Amino acid sequence: MIWKQTVLVSELYFCVCRIMEDSSPDRRGSVFAGLVGVSQVLGLLSVVLTGVWMGHYRGGFAWDGSAREFNLHPLCMVLGLVLLHGDAILVYRVFSNEAKKKVKLLHGTIHLLALVTSIVGVAAVFDFHSASLIPHLYSLHSWGGLTTLILFSLQWVMGLLFFLLPGASSWLRATYLPIHVFCGLTLLVMAIGTSLLGITEKLLFSIESSYPQFPPEGVLANILGVLLVLFGVLLCYLVTREEYRRPPNPEEEALSVHFKTLTEGEAPATP
Amino acid sequence: MIWKQTVLVSELYFCVCRIMEDSSPDRRGSVFAGLVGVSQVLGLLSVVLTGVWMGHYRGGFAWDGSAREFNLHPLCMVLGLVLLHGDAILVYRVFSNEAKKKVKLLHGTIHLLALVTSIVGVAAVFDFHSASLIPHLYSLHSWGGLTTLILFSLQWVMGLLFFLLPGASSWLRATYLPIHVFCGLTLLVMAIGTSLLGITEKLLFSIESSYPQFPPEGVLANILGVLLVLFGVLLCYLVTREEYRRPPNPEEEALSVHFKTLTEGEAPATP
Repeated sequence: MIWKQTVLVSELYFCVCRIMEDSSPDRRGSVFAGLVGVSQVLGLLSVVLTGVWMGHYRGGFAWDGSAREFNLHPLCMVLGLVLLHGDAILVYRVFSNEAKKKVKLLHGTIHLLALVTSIVGVAAVFDFHSASLIPHLYSLHSWGGLTTLILFSLQWVMGLLFFLLPGASSWLRATYLPIHVFCGLTLLVMAIGTSLLGITEKLLFSIESSYPQFPPEGVLANILGVLLVLFGVLLCYLVTREEYRRPPNPEEEALSVHFKTLTEGEAPATP
Repeated sequence: MIWKQTVLVSELYFCVCRIMEDSSPDRRGSVFAGLVGVSQVLGLLSVVLTGVWMGHYRGGFAWDGSAREFNLHPLCMVLGLVLLHGDAILVYRVFSNEAKKKVKLLHGTIHLLALVTSIVGVAAVFDFHSASLIPHLYSLHSWGGLTTLILFSLQWVMGLLFFLLPGASSWLRATYLPIHVFCGLTLLVMAIGTSLLGITEKLLFSIESSYPQFPPEGVLANILGVLLVLFGVLLCYLVTREEYRRPPNPEEEALSVHFKTLTEGEAPATP
């Protein structure tokens, strides 16, 4: 039967993968490095395609209240809220053997860059709407975008308070960490979803009549959407796979013991 | 300093949550049941709002090649590829104490219903496009939707082959399971993202000129988008939280031992 053969072939395929991974300790690292490389190509290509779309097909960039000021909006959002946001998350996996403090600082700094870039992008579209007398915040894209940016800012402030500044106990950090990770990935997915809504809006506002004839601008924008989705899926995969997690270190183990002691109702060994 | 007070208040908040959870073994279950209830309200409301949008504002439903045939498309997709798809995933958490075989059958059956409903929805839009001489598959929404549906079908067939039919070894099942779970959640997110693109397309095709004035139809469709996002976020939260996982049972433990023996290079105890 064909399904028995399919199962057999699958079994063989997964078995070969497992043997290849186990035969060389470096192979898993190589696969990981390769996937990180692919994610960076996808992310950078997305920024470049956004630049080409706005620069070549939509008249370029300026800060003068015209459509050219609007063009800065997609460029800043894809660069800030997608690429930099994604890379800020990824540093925890890429630099998993570096000191945690340094990685935290890098994570927070790239997030701050992402936040500043995104705010410039949002300012550009608000300024363009005001200059062109277009109402603000009526579309699903704008609702999604503003919600994502506000929650992203909150997430950054919470991360700073709980993980970078002193004051939060190990117990609080351990309790908040899974929520922080879940919210971070959710916000990345929301940023990508909102970008796709923006692509669709821009295409229908600009080339609605020719879009069904597959014009180069429409195909380029669709491909940009596909690249953004692939970037998001690959990033979520790299961050959620168990084998790519940061290996436990003594600091983390101490924290874990502290956490366990607290939740089991005994007094912790240290104040 | 204000940030020290914020940290203190947060610590207190999380501590109270933890104490409340630990003080009663049933409380965690109640929170879970409450969240499942909210997810169902969000999902059902999404289907109802889609029905109201297409039924009340867009002229109702028919299978006659007209715009009323198109109206079946969003209804079937939200019902099939979002609500039923999400609920099929959720049954593993809701019925975590039932026999695994039964839950698997329920999971596969709801997925099959989701697949059939989605195929009817896609047939409706293809038929409408053909009757109205509109080209097929030019938009980002259509690219995303068709890709999601094809991958969803493949995911269903792979699930059937590897988990329901006999033939696949425990090793193959254990190896494929995390991939199956990741792909399932990714496809749910893709289905929701594609729905949002569809909402934006439909609004711009139908009410582009009045949309910026916040007409009831536009606001209703935006709210539908918000509900779909909330449904997706809540579902991903319920499925990925460690404490809501299916508790290990003897069958799973045997499988885990079998898996461990195999990966450590020894011969398994049973063939």
